[in-house]
Amino acid sequence: MRRVLFGFFLFLFASELRSQTDSVFIRKIADEIFQHSNAYSNLHTLTKTIGPRLSGTPQTYSSEKWGEDALSKAGADRVYLQKAMIPHWVRGGRAKAALVSGKSRQELAVIALGNSVSTPPGGITAPMILINNFDELERRKNEIRGRIVFYNYPFDVNFVWVFNAYKEAVPYRADGPSRAAKYGALGVVVRSMTSSTDNLPHTGAMVYNDSFPKIPALAVGLADADKMAAAFNKQKDLQLFISTDAHSLPDTVGYNVIGEWKGSEFPDQYIVVGGHLDSWDPAEGASDDGTGCVHSIEVLRALKAIGYKPKHTIRFILFTDEENGGRGATAYASEAKTKNEKHIFALESDAGGFSPRGFSFKGDEAQLAVVRSWLPLFVPYGVTEFPAFGAGADVEPLHDSTGVLASELTPDSQRYFDYHHAASDTFEKVNKRELELGAINMAAMIYLVDKYGF
Amino acid sequence: MRRVLFGFFLFLFASELRSQTDSVFIRKIADEIFQHSNAYSNLHTLTKTIGPRLSGTPQTYSSEKWGEDALSKAGADRVYLQKAMIPHWVRGGRAKAALVSGKSRQELAVIALGNSVSTPPGGITAPMILINNFDELERRKNEIRGRIVFYNYPFDVNFVWVFNAYKEAVPYRADGPSRAAKYGALGVVVRSMTSSTDNLPHTGAMVYNDSFPKIPALAVGLADADKMAAAFNKQKDLQLFISTDAHSLPDTVGYNVIGEWKGSEFPDQYIVVGGHLDSWDPAEGASDDGTGCVHSIEVLRALKAIGYKPKHTIRFILFTDEENGGRGATAYASEAKTKNEKHIFALESDAGGFSPRGFSFKGDEAQLAVVRSWLPLFVPYGVTEFPAFGAGADVEPLHDSTGVLASELTPDSQRYFDYHHAASDTFEKVNKRELELGAINMAAMIYLVDKYGF
Repeated sequence: MRRVLFGFFLFLFASELRSQTDSVFIRKIADEIFQHSNAYSNLHTLTKTIGPRLSGTPQTYSSEKWGEDALSKAGADRVYLQKAMIPHWVRGGRAKAALVSGKSRQELAVIALGNSVSTPPGGITAPMILINNFDELERRKNEIRGRIVFYNYPFDVNFVWVFNAYKEAVPYRADGPSRAAKYGALGVVVRSMTSSTDNLPHTGAMVYNDSFPKIPALAVGLADADKMAAAFNKQKDLQLFISTDAHSLPDTVGYNVIGEWKGSEFPDQYIVVGGHLDSWDPAEGASDDGTGCVHSIEVLRALKAIGYKPKHTIRFILFTDEENGGRGATAYASEAKTKNEKHIFALESDAGGFSPRGFSFKGDEAQLAVVRSWLPLFVPYGVTEFPAFGAGADVEPLHDSTGVLASELTPDSQRYFDYHHAASDTFEKVNKRELELGAINMAAMIYLVDKYGF
Repeated sequence: MRRVLFGFFLFLFASELRSQTDSVFIRKIADEIFQHSNAYSNLHTLTKTIGPRLSGTPQTYSSEKWGEDALSKAGADRVYLQKAMIPHWVRGGRAKAALVSGKSRQELAVIALGNSVSTPPGGITAPMILINNFDELERRKNEIRGRIVFYNYPFDVNFVWVFNAYKEAVPYRADGPSRAAKYGALGVVVRSMTSSTDNLPHTGAMVYNDSFPKIPALAVGLADADKMAAAFNKQKDLQLFISTDAHSLPDTVGYNVIGEWKGSEFPDQYIVVGGHLDSWDPAEGASDDGTGCVHSIEVLRALKAIGYKPKHTIRFILFTDEENGGRGATAYASEAKTKNEKHIFALESDAGGFSPRGFSFKGDEAQLAVVRSWLPLFVPYGVTEFPAFGAGADVEPLHDSTGVLASELTPDSQRYFDYHHAASDTFEKVNKRELELGAINMAAMIYLVDKYGF
């Protein structure tokens, strides 16, 4: 609360004139975007023409081509590609799972986790053990061998900021398989990281610990997770069948697609705005992260359309491979470091195209104080908070390597995890005006950073 | 801005202890609602089992029955009905319209406006005149006779608070037909009050001025409105065909459904919480206003579930006939006035079940100052603004007759008019968590009003 107050004071004492000019300019940005935005139609093309964009699939390359064209059309001075070696994991057809009890067999809605190995042909059938959390895993480590572990860790609905529930649950997906393999598990099924009302399974990255055997790992939809728990509580010797053909091929090549807009005063100082071009594959990657890509492209288009001339060079980046390793972000950060490029700000959008609520930051207090003095300029556009709980996965590596102030647009979080990494992450879930409001606030932030620097 | 600052100060100087107790209690409300809410399942029943609830249709009565049951189950001490005479307008089948040019005929997506009279059997075919606004209507009043007026007034996309666009456009729907009839028009087609990306027509109330002939009136979807404008600009002697069987029957009886929860200290002082039970009929009235009904019922359920004992008597009201005359609100306000009942607060939810942003108020400055001192308690639940731009149609009459402070929940407004009065206003457009956040904030407001009074 005091933080917000402090921002208000800074604002009140700052030049009224300066803030009036800025608010008029931001209103101009808003009018331009509400009236002429391409964000929604760009998102339609990306999701419906190209579709899912899992690293290493043909869509990795068709989406790069799309990104080059879209950034050129939006007015980039030059568009170029930045190479990164990306994983090439192959889903290999639909995973299957079933509860097996004597002759009865109940199919479950599952999906293989990213990077999972395959089961042997014909799958694995083994006794299931329900594990509620890692404490329980450790307590019951002697009961794991020869079994399939079902992690039923709940997605905590009490968090208003839903990303906190995800943060708490995601270790079961990311580390759960190897932690179970350590004690001899044959496979893992994890409760999906969502509180959605449907039964769709949610995939996402899983990381093997090379010290332990690699075992196949799936996610299961919530209704079926509840069924599994109920069945297990009734009958402890329940069998679980799982099957997946997932496997990894050698790393391949992917590219960050970068559109550059040259600065007039400080061409060698950089501002970054981006989203990630890759997506998981059960759907078309609309909210994760088609919206971040089209947000970024729209910032460029709109600022150019109203005649803005940036002082600093702005790079609009469609990052490769955020989902399955973050290799694009690492490549950018490492090249920036090697070339000793001066970055003053890095902004990403990777939390959906929902109505914006704020920006989150990772940076030092002096930088944050400057940014917070601008908060009142954003309030008319729905942005009312500038928390400091981190930036996103595509700009944090740059912060870590260069110390640049990093930020992420924080849209309303209620719906994001309903669709996240699931078959429901479609274009239809994105609202045109909400998407545009995100681009408006991002463009306003880039304008203020470029104008006042740090 | 200063208003907000003032609220912050009041808060900071108020008892820290008091505010801590309150924030703990509100957290308890949130946990209860996030974990055990019936709001979403109630909305499912209301929309999918009962469906559209246009005044005078059989669903008026089945929804009253549903409301009585739901309020009883939620724990009302008593549930009773309050009579109101309501309009009985009958849509009478699907309206039709087409652009006619020689032998070519282009069908248009239309819907009759509420209260429209029918066309003669076989419809009306007449020259069309496009009118952009009422100024143009007055300038061209001599060209109106014998024609069908197409009001093409745009829904202004530049407003961030979308209700402002609605407010500006709605006179063309409400008064446009009689204003055109004054100059001899034979019928009216009005551009739908929305900026949605689909072509669905949006209905809503139209009010005839009895001084002029009653002429049939339809709304048309946006894509078809644009087609009409393009065709008209190419060919000024374009004909328009319109047809509707809409007609009015004599007024009938409807009921406000009221659940009462007796106060322990001031049983003769009343707090009102409500939504409206009726809806327009192209869809199932989910966001307008099933969500307001289930919000209100959930406030009762949740406060009871956590053991709250109100000091004042709280009335949970499902109003009849908001859409087509507001007769339920008038009946309640007039009985409250006649009986000289002391009301201390009246809250409604009629702006959808989207993520809450604030509460809007209609009341005097002293009352508003008290309410504003509570704002920081709401911020963790997404409510960051308490503007004074009015309350809703179901509580303003009570404000007008008794001076009670009236308020309306103000959810994010970006999506509301995409669905408002159109076939897209379905259950599927409502997100469970967003709906619950609305109920949490409403319950918190009722708790604070009941505890501290005015």
